[in-house]
Amino acid sequence: MKLYHKINVDLGDRSYQIIIGNKILNGNFDIAKFISGPDCLVVSNETIAPLHMKTLLSNLNDKTVSTIELVDGESHKNIDSINKILDKLAFSNANRDTTVIALGGGVVGDIAGFAAACYMRGVSLIQVPTTLLAQVDSSVGGKTGVNHQEGKNLIGAFHQPKIVVIDTNTLKTLPDREYRAGLAEVIKHAAICDIDYFVWLEKNIKLLVSKDPEALAYAIKRSCEIKAAVVAEDEYEAGRRATLNFGHTFGHAIEHCTGYGNWLHGEAVAAGMVMAAQLSNIDSDEIARLVKLIKAAGLPVLKPEIPLDEWLKAIGMDKKVLHKKLRFVLLEKLGKSYVTSSFDENQLLNILGDNN
Amino acid sequence: MKLYHKINVDLGDRSYQIIIGNKILNGNFDIAKFISGPDCLVVSNETIAPLHMKTLLSNLNDKTVSTIELVDGESHKNIDSINKILDKLAFSNANRDTTVIALGGGVVGDIAGFAAACYMRGVSLIQVPTTLLAQVDSSVGGKTGVNHQEGKNLIGAFHQPKIVVIDTNTLKTLPDREYRAGLAEVIKHAAICDIDYFVWLEKNIKLLVSKDPEALAYAIKRSCEIKAAVVAEDEYEAGRRATLNFGHTFGHAIEHCTGYGNWLHGEAVAAGMVMAAQLSNIDSDEIARLVKLIKAAGLPVLKPEIPLDEWLKAIGMDKKVLHKKLRFVLLEKLGKSYVTSSFDENQLLNILGDNN
Repeated sequence: MKLYHKINVDLGDRSYQIIIGNKILNGNFDIAKFISGPDCLVVSNETIAPLHMKTLLSNLNDKTVSTIELVDGESHKNIDSINKILDKLAFSNANRDTTVIALGGGVVGDIAGFAAACYMRGVSLIQVPTTLLAQVDSSVGGKTGVNHQEGKNLIGAFHQPKIVVIDTNTLKTLPDREYRAGLAEVIKHAAICDIDYFVWLEKNIKLLVSKDPEALAYAIKRSCEIKAAVVAEDEYEAGRRATLNFGHTFGHAIEHCTGYGNWLHGEAVAAGMVMAAQLSNIDSDEIARLVKLIKAAGLPVLKPEIPLDEWLKAIGMDKKVLHKKLRFVLLEKLGKSYVTSSFDENQLLNILGDNN
Repeated sequence: MKLYHKINVDLGDRSYQIIIGNKILNGNFDIAKFISGPDCLVVSNETIAPLHMKTLLSNLNDKTVSTIELVDGESHKNIDSINKILDKLAFSNANRDTTVIALGGGVVGDIAGFAAACYMRGVSLIQVPTTLLAQVDSSVGGKTGVNHQEGKNLIGAFHQPKIVVIDTNTLKTLPDREYRAGLAEVIKHAAICDIDYFVWLEKNIKLLVSKDPEALAYAIKRSCEIKAAVVAEDEYEAGRRATLNFGHTFGHAIEHCTGYGNWLHGEAVAAGMVMAAQLSNIDSDEIARLVKLIKAAGLPVLKPEIPLDEWLKAIGMDKKVLHKKLRFVLLEKLGKSYVTSSFDENQLLNILGDNN
């Protein structure tokens, strides 16, 4: 039996591998080999560090290691956290050869990644994602950044990691609500580009919700393959990569309008995908299949109550706006998506206004 | 007679041109053509804006323009200034299609460039450098960033501009001291890779100091050509680009130890180049020629009094340190440089300790 899977993210001289395995932090994989210099800084948070820091550090015996623990939560995904990490690097005489390791969920990965992108115009980064959402989505592809009061991820950089190390064992300690939020991105990958995967999810969603190891291993691997392929084709989101934002225009608005952290990102994306499907010109049967799968994953399919003018403002500020024109990721059918600025405006107002 | 010169910076899909001419902000060149979206933010400072903002804006009649004026000076080259620009962008609903225009010297260009690199993971940037230093050096090549109390340019990004527009007319209003500081980088370009240019400078330094238009046009063009060629060969400073740091390890230490802003960057680099030449294994005649040229440019050739331990700390923190090993740019001879971690340590201590 293989100890771990390898997936290649093909980006020329920025190519890297995603390593997926159970308990690979317990010595089944040599992470230290990917730290080129003598020292590293592990960035984690107060929740994750007590659970997994010791195990991670046991892989880094030959290195000079410093650590920093952020306060947990999306509300701390801001410039202040970036400054704390940059101060830590500067005051510990980190240099171009220092590696930053992100140990935690998407928030930790985004913050640590952006700090690594900025320090000395970019130092090496290793992602060790510990939530399902980070494992299947945010740790792969190089998007890093923090929120601004005017919008999510408004400040950031593209900064590819040297390697992504996914230990599925870390999901054992992940709260159920966060685990289910990660399933939203899994469903998204299937919905935008792989009907076979979607059908597999329909059949296996119960196993997946119960964290069945085999189902989980397959879903993480398949989602990482999809993400890696899309990123390899379009690193800087000039085209196809934008389809990964399916459900995210609405989802970001939900997060923004309800106050970051009240809806988990995956929950907001779940409800956002239903809205995006409703805006798409597809059969109602297909919308129903998507709704059923999202529900089966224990995720919300109804948007929260938000006044229409707040919706519109929140959507108008979204990064996917080009020439001040709204752009949406819509479904041509289940398993096929496209980016467009041509959509039914009345239908959009119906979807936003109606509290169905 | 040509209205302006064009120099190509060849960086694949990030290639751009440097436009050099007199009074090209007065309508001889169409800048607006390089602003792809409908809106832009001009970043300048309180000193430069009253002198050149109106002229620049007269080029942008068809665009929605907002402006921001920073406080002048290297001491404001910090994260706070970045936050001000990011706030301005966010609150004015800037999006991926917005262009940031840097109007000013190296400090403005570095700050505005880094803000452009961070906003929505990178928006378009146009550099309009108004000091000699920025025109011949900092506006070309994509290095952006701000200082940290532990070191200069410790926080930043590589972010190439869409175009660099150099109006030599802006040098008329540049204070003499700042103008001479820019000559340090001109001399640096010659010293590291072009003996013919060095000889030309020896012959024409008086004309250059008096801002003779023809001499000035030639020097800016030749320096931009050298910078463009080096950057095209090594965008991310993996090798040859590091030679552009000739004099900068010592120079940055001088700036750091004397408090940013007391020595102008070019002044610190001037004294730093003399120190680097003394550390190089070259004929004393050649050191004398370099000293003579720097003096003739009205720049300092003697370092300030700094205790040895401060020197060493300041140098140890320099970004050119790999594996905690000091690396210097040294001269093989005038017009030829190399990067090395092999140097005479006693000689280094002599140079740092001796107040010659």
